[in-house]
Amino acid sequence: MIVVMQQGASEEQVRRVAERLERAGFGIHISRGVERTLIGAVGDKRLTATLAVEAMEGVDRVVPILQPFKQVSREFKPEPSVVRVRGVPVGGEEVVVIAGPCSVESREQILATARAVKAAGARLLRGGAFKPRTSPYSFQGLELEGLKLLAEAREETGLPVVTEVTDPRLVDVVARHADVLQIGARNMQNYQLLREVGQASRPVLLKRGMASTVEEWLMAAEYIVAAGNRQLILCERGIRTFEPATRFTLDLGAVAVARHLSHLPILVDPSHAAGKWRWVGALARAGLAVGADGLIVEVHPRPEEALSDGPQSLNLERFGQLMAELSALARAMGRTLGPAAEAPGAGAGAAVAQGGSLGRPAASAG
Amino acid sequence: MIVVMQQGASEEQVRRVAERLERAGFGIHISRGVERTLIGAVGDKRLTATLAVEAMEGVDRVVPILQPFKQVSREFKPEPSVVRVRGVPVGGEEVVVIAGPCSVESREQILATARAVKAAGARLLRGGAFKPRTSPYSFQGLELEGLKLLAEAREETGLPVVTEVTDPRLVDVVARHADVLQIGARNMQNYQLLREVGQASRPVLLKRGMASTVEEWLMAAEYIVAAGNRQLILCERGIRTFEPATRFTLDLGAVAVARHLSHLPILVDPSHAAGKWRWVGALARAGLAVGADGLIVEVHPRPEEALSDGPQSLNLERFGQLMAELSALARAMGRTLGPAAEAPGAGAGAAVAQGGSLGRPAASAG
Amino acid sequence: MIVVMQQGASEEQVRRVAERLERAGFGIHISRGVERTLIGAVGDKRLTATLAVEAMEGVDRVVPILQPFKQVSREFKPEPSVVRVRGVPVGGEEVVVIAGPCSVESREQILATARAVKAAGARLLRGGAFKPRTSPYSFQGLELEGLKLLAEAREETGLPVVTEVTDPRLVDVVARHADVLQIGARNMQNYQLLREVGQASRPVLLKRGMASTVEEWLMAAEYIVAAGNRQLILCERGIRTFEPATRFTLDLGAVAVARHLSHLPILVDPSHAAGKWRWVGALARAGLAVGADGLIVEVHPRPEEALSDGPQSLNLERFGQLMAELSALARAMGRTLGPAAEAPGAGAGAAVAQGGSLGRPAASAG
Amino acid sequence: MIVVMQQGASEEQVRRVAERLERAGFGIHISRGVERTLIGAVGDKRLTATLAVEAMEGVDRVVPILQPFKQVSREFKPEPSVVRVRGVPVGGEEVVVIAGPCSVESREQILATARAVKAAGARLLRGGAFKPRTSPYSFQGLELEGLKLLAEAREETGLPVVTEVTDPRLVDVVARHADVLQIGARNMQNYQLLREVGQASRPVLLKRGMASTVEEWLMAAEYIVAAGNRQLILCERGIRTFEPATRFTLDLGAVAVARHLSHLPILVDPSHAAGKWRWVGALARAGLAVGADGLIVEVHPRPEEALSDGPQSLNLERFGQLMAELSALARAMGRTLGPAAEAPGAGAGAAVAQGGSLGRPAASAG
Repeated sequence: MIVVMQQGASEEQVRRVAERLERAGFGIHISRGVERTLIGAVGDKRLTATLAVEAMEGVDRVVPILQPFKQVSREFKPEPSVVRVRGVPVGGEEVVVIAGPCSVESREQILATARAVKAAGARLLRGGAFKPRTSPYSFQGLELEGLKLLAEAREETGLPVVTEVTDPRLVDVVARHADVLQIGARNMQNYQLLREVGQASRPVLLKRGMASTVEEWLMAAEYIVAAGNRQLILCERGIRTFEPATRFTLDLGAVAVARHLSHLPILVDPSHAAGKWRWVGALARAGLAVGADGLIVEVHPRPEEALSDGPQSLNLERFGQLMAELSALARAMGRTLGPAAEAPGAGAGAAVAQGGSLGRPAASAG
Repeated sequence: MIVVMQQGASEEQVRRVAERLERAGFGIHISRGVERTLIGAVGDKRLTATLAVEAMEGVDRVVPILQPFKQVSREFKPEPSVVRVRGVPVGGEEVVVIAGPCSVESREQILATARAVKAAGARLLRGGAFKPRTSPYSFQGLELEGLKLLAEAREETGLPVVTEVTDPRLVDVVARHADVLQIGARNMQNYQLLREVGQASRPVLLKRGMASTVEEWLMAAEYIVAAGNRQLILCERGIRTFEPATRFTLDLGAVAVARHLSHLPILVDPSHAAGKWRWVGALARAGLAVGADGLIVEVHPRPEEALSDGPQSLNLERFGQLMAELSALARAMGRTLGPAAEAPGAGAGAAVAQGGSLGRPAASAG
Repeated sequence: MIVVMQQGASEEQVRRVAERLERAGFGIHISRGVERTLIGAVGDKRLTATLAVEAMEGVDRVVPILQPFKQVSREFKPEPSVVRVRGVPVGGEEVVVIAGPCSVESREQILATARAVKAAGARLLRGGAFKPRTSPYSFQGLELEGLKLLAEAREETGLPVVTEVTDPRLVDVVARHADVLQIGARNMQNYQLLREVGQASRPVLLKRGMASTVEEWLMAAEYIVAAGNRQLILCERGIRTFEPATRFTLDLGAVAVARHLSHLPILVDPSHAAGKWRWVGALARAGLAVGADGLIVEVHPRPEEALSDGPQSLNLERFGQLMAELSALARAMGRTLGPAAEAPGAGAGAAVAQGGSLGRPAASAG
Repeated sequence: MIVVMQQGASEEQVRRVAERLERAGFGIHISRGVERTLIGAVGDKRLTATLAVEAMEGVDRVVPILQPFKQVSREFKPEPSVVRVRGVPVGGEEVVVIAGPCSVESREQILATARAVKAAGARLLRGGAFKPRTSPYSFQGLELEGLKLLAEAREETGLPVVTEVTDPRLVDVVARHADVLQIGARNMQNYQLLREVGQASRPVLLKRGMASTVEEWLMAAEYIVAAGNRQLILCERGIRTFEPATRFTLDLGAVAVARHLSHLPILVDPSHAAGKWRWVGALARAGLAVGADGLIVEVHPRPEEALSDGPQSLNLERFGQLMAELSALARAMGRTLGPAAEAPGAGAGAAVAQGGSLGRPAASAG
């Protein structure tokens, strides 16, 4: 880090800062400019956070140089990570689509959806059993019953199941029924929960908080990895901005940045960002084109009767159309969509894909 | 709510929406304009959230008319609520200052701080025992030991204690040692935690999430009240915006709005918004002037050695100066600061205070 | 619009609001719910803005129902508009790439760039002559000399020229040399300038302001059309959010929304959003996939020597690679990139394109 | 500035960056850490903006150390500036209130308002003649006729006049009639306009853009000062955030920061931030308490009939009440409100004011 002293800071103030940094184990270098004195400090970046140098007299501000995350970074592990969910690789050449309803509402609903999204090429099934809802008076999910229905849908269709866990006390029971533990945007900095899923034996899907920077997102990921769980998938789902036309603003630049900084697979959720089914397809295509490893899309057999997020859910027909579009786009990018056998990888994309497919993580990314 | 149909929506589509609303128990009124047909629906506002009318064919959008919160609203209870914390009234004529370190670090540190802030006029002591930190490698708090030290500081000084709870499993133990359960900004929509503190027998201090609207903040409050706990205090602590100069952007307009919409007491936290001690005083004064019922301020005997939030902590001397400034401001607004005996309420404020003090909640607020 | 009265508003207050609306020419309908009285008002939406009904006693708020823009809306003109720039159609089946340096710096620089981007498939040349710069001490552009160099580059390459105009006094001279008048993000609500370009005989490229909603963007477009110029192209270039990793947050959801609401062609500028060349390609692909009619990309022969925006400029080699990627993506979406003869439109995209290409404006968009 | 090289950057890349910086006149220092090489560059900060070092191979990013503004900074001029408007000092001990309607609408309206706000203690009169409006169909102001009416109101009441100028072609005519040239938020980065008012002989009131950082605001101020006009007043009026309850989010932290960084006087506009008259008073008090040198408040004799901004305008009675509140607050802070003779400066504030009044700029601000 670089400590920038105030204009006119005294020699004594500079000396005190330098001493404090040295005592903490940093190597230091003092640089005296015409207007400012700078103190460069080299050492373990994890120490930085615990030093309140900015509170010392004569200090203007502290400029961090190194990234605060470590194990999730590409500097730590240059080659891309692939997370396998019951045999489905997330983060490889295949683009993986996760689809299903916002909430599990009934046996019929989840089974019908599971069959349809599988037929259209989805590789995992999503569905909420414990729902975080803005209003205490809204439907809160089927809870344990919902988990059982998801497991039943997996038995029938073979699709591994992704579901959200919102309470550290529930990590065990959710992990018994589901294949991927989802941490929702509102819980991205629920550190108790991150530590619990960090000790679970299931892959984790970590959504970006709606007001979290890419750096904070990767720090949340670092919590999970530091607790022992390396099976981690990131997911961008839109951030909060001043624009009211969409529910959130999908930040695809953040996907490009996270790809550059981290080796973890990254998905895009176009449904929550759009807030309306009408714009889900366009954002799904954009997410795939920016280089995401997959998408998580809300699908409901009858969106107008959904108990949650109906307005942003695709019906089965629209989901099928979207999958056809995405399949062509994936091929154009040198990737595949859906089980390998169904995507011969021919056509326009072949030429482009020479030397590596677009958007996929590569160790040599510039 | 008002359902706005798309331009060119068919009669059949209008009929289906109307039928669906009637089946759900709403009274409806259809209004056909030149360009648009509107369907007004009158009924229990809590039903609205569970109806996916926006997903129906021909619907452009749904405009809610009623506020989605109920028990925390002024329409439910026009007169302001006063929450008593071991005899200290929050939400009354007195402006209450809560002060103390970000984290409890040692017996000496918390006792020295408690004595000093009491002497300066603070009425409650704050201090973190379980710390949510952005980095897994940062100091995470003294945990149970921290709670015991807070209780000891209360025994000695008589100051009731405010501390954060971050895990539903810890609500009981925190409630045994502390007098106010704080829900931090990152947990404002941690609904499992809200339900737990909603069943506790201690007052709750609910900070606004850094990306939460006033409406969502009041909905989070509604969760706690709906679970049974009416002893609730709101706290604005800054929101996330594009401006990097301060840590967060203190949203004092939200304090004015929340005051208008809700009967709950509201505090302001100038420390987390400022991010630097240099701007804490100015924001504290502004928070008091906008009409907050109190402030929560980070104070540390030696900020440059603090294990967390040192840069934004006032040292004891600066805190004392701030309290003198605030005391004069409070009097000018017809309120008092600190224990009643110390604030005779004379001076400049007396003239202004005729007909009610400034910024205090009044049943007749326009 | 709907006027929502306060709870407890008097009959007299309701009557006064109703009378005022009637006097202004609105048809009204009063609806008395249990909790609130609503007054619906039907009439010329352009009247709404001039009525301060929200300032009347007893009024809680006013909810607009109709969009405030008119001539730029799809309700006014359902079929998509195509703007022809010296024969190049913007808004049709072809995806149009505009490329060139941030600033015109020298004869050699602009000619070399023009030749290279043309060879790679760009259809228009961009280059700044009058530069709005954050610092008064930065390079401010070659001004008139820059315009002449752009015209020279057009003579040699045949590429029509896009350049920014920042001052109403300069509209005439810029229009004499350039083919498209660009209004930059900082001037989106410079209404004097909008009126001037609204009277010019050149097409206008209107960038979205960095803090402007889609509605405000379309209102700015309405200014230009209302002044008489229907040759208008929109361009999304990123908005300001809390995320510091990219220069701006590219809001592709806004592209989908603007496409739904307006018949105007829409471009995406990935360069200013990214802020670094490293992420320009990913955002360009995403912009194309979301359905934009084209892209505007900063290209410089030697970015490290650029006098402005060097960090986000692609060099000639990287731009060539990007065009190959985009060409494959365009085909997959049933569109073409570059002059028609070069893009046979066969391959993977053909199947998808049945019934219309992806993302292109269609009169029947749902 | 500090150039942070990528991990693994080659010696050759480091050498090239160093050479380029030296050629540009910077003194450089290379620091090789375990993970990163840093290149510190010391020299004229105004050079920095023109160097595209971030585009060079092997460079990760560039960290600026010095502020990019110069003449408006406290480092350039430590003591606070006082701008005199026809004898009224802005930036001194007195808190100055500017009041008046959004738009000049008629002779009767502006004269009645001018008389009333003067009687209540306002020191300057505001009123718009050329109005920037979101919709081309809204009232655009009385233009030249409005300027003449403002001048007439000044003749009668003696109140100097503040009015907005939106077009570089109109600076001369506005300067002939008005005493302060206001640059609105939408024009904060209209550099052509900034240069024109920078050459005018009237004081300028520069509002912060709704998406501008404090640094950009001060850079816009630097444009005006660099063009020759040192009579400059800053004004915070709210920024754009995700919160819809108020029209904008008043950023009082930015006032504290700008005060720390710059010697220029700073006002607060509570009216545009609030968007509703109901919250103007609370934000006005907060603005005064944070340390602003004054306020600019929208006042209208009959807000419900205003042609613009009626909902956020105070009527004459409410403005009078607000001035009484503000007067008491000002005294408590050791300042005065209104002409000196009316504010003896006694009372509660006297004790606090020892050693300087609160919030006023002082050369020794920490």
